[in-house]
Amino acid sequence: MVERHFDEDLTKLNTELLKMAALTEEAIYRSIEALQNKDDALARSVIDNDKQIDAMENIIEEHAIELLALRQPMAVDLRFITTGMKINAELERIADLAVNISQRVIDLAGAPLVKALIDLPRLSDIARKMVKGAIDAFVSGDPEKAEQVIFMDPAANKMKNLIVNELIYGYMVKDGTTAPRAVPLLLIARHLERICDHATNIAEDVVYMVNAKMVKHCKIDKKSA
Amino acid sequence: MVERHFDEDLTKLNTELLKMAALTEEAIYRSIEALQNKDDALARSVIDNDKQIDAMENIIEEHAIELLALRQPMAVDLRFITTGMKINAELERIADLAVNISQRVIDLAGAPLVKALIDLPRLSDIARKMVKGAIDAFVSGDPEKAEQVIFMDPAANKMKNLIVNELIYGYMVKDGTTAPRAVPLLLIARHLERICDHATNIAEDVVYMVNAKMVKHCKIDKKSA
Repeated sequence: MVERHFDEDLTKLNTELLKMAALTEEAIYRSIEALQNKDDALARSVIDNDKQIDAMENIIEEHAIELLALRQPMAVDLRFITTGMKINAELERIADLAVNISQRVIDLAGAPLVKALIDLPRLSDIARKMVKGAIDAFVSGDPEKAEQVIFMDPAANKMKNLIVNELIYGYMVKDGTTAPRAVPLLLIARHLERICDHATNIAEDVVYMVNAKMVKHCKIDKKSA
Repeated sequence: MVERHFDEDLTKLNTELLKMAALTEEAIYRSIEALQNKDDALARSVIDNDKQIDAMENIIEEHAIELLALRQPMAVDLRFITTGMKINAELERIADLAVNISQRVIDLAGAPLVKALIDLPRLSDIARKMVKGAIDAFVSGDPEKAEQVIFMDPAANKMKNLIVNELIYGYMVKDGTTAPRAVPLLLIARHLERICDHATNIAEDVVYMVNAKMVKHCKIDKKSA
């Protein structure tokens, strides 16, 4: 009887995390939509909706701690719960970064963009793909899917660096008056790249959960960017 | 007998976290020293030393999970361990931000600073004070100390905004060629302000640990910056 309830609890935790992940992915998507369409209202809706994601993080965390305290899980279940707690925190940070992107869109206040948006939406696609891939890896407990996410991170870093350098040397240095419009784009590139880092963290947590060994800080040096 | 060992385990966890906090504070201090003295070697040493902090995070985390699994702690002890795990993760992120600051110092490559460094060291002092205060609050289990840290965050935000605006409108807009030197300083201001956010997270975790209620996402809106 207790066993069955415990399985139900774990399934519930899983479902909650999936819902949290879906909301987070949507926040990323909308923040970049807001940028592309100069849609301040959409940017503000991302910021408003973050309260829901924050509330969800708290609920999932309380639920996980409750499971730890009341069920005293061992081995595989323990690892699933502690990994779930970490993924929960990573997702909340990713959602915060979507909020940061939306704030940069509001900073731009509908001003004409310094350049056509080609690379930023592309980097955003990579970021969403990585978040989705990391969550898929968690749900299916598949370390190979997780590895694929980890291997995407260097390309995301490189793209971010290209965008940042173009904005500095191709725009700001040539015409300083572009700075108030170029800096928000530069920051958005960095926010997106950090989303990729958090997706990488999730993927590393999944590899750890499955293999019960620490890959974090060994395989990939996230901070070289 | 088991009880005594468990207390020893908790004391060990506490000691490890204090050591991790000391290393992290030192990383912040050194990264700003490197900026002020244009000391690339010092900046590189912060980056190199981060491996040690990363290793320490892994050790503390493994230790905490072991405690959860083997000791099946309840109530106060459970909360202490889960809070310790979160603080551990926050400290590692703070150390990463010190690495980011150091990377910006290396980006500057000893180039003359666009402006005298007055506000950045001041913001760095606030950041270190907040980290120290948050850890003190954890060690002493004192929610009032934690509240003091939380109340410092808006001032740190304001200072960051002042620095960023001065760099954009006081420098880059007036002379675009300052951008390659102004952007790293702008990013450093943001890195420092994020350190303050992480210190705030720790302080909120401490309040939660003591009061067993969620203050996160309720009292302070970190994302308004």
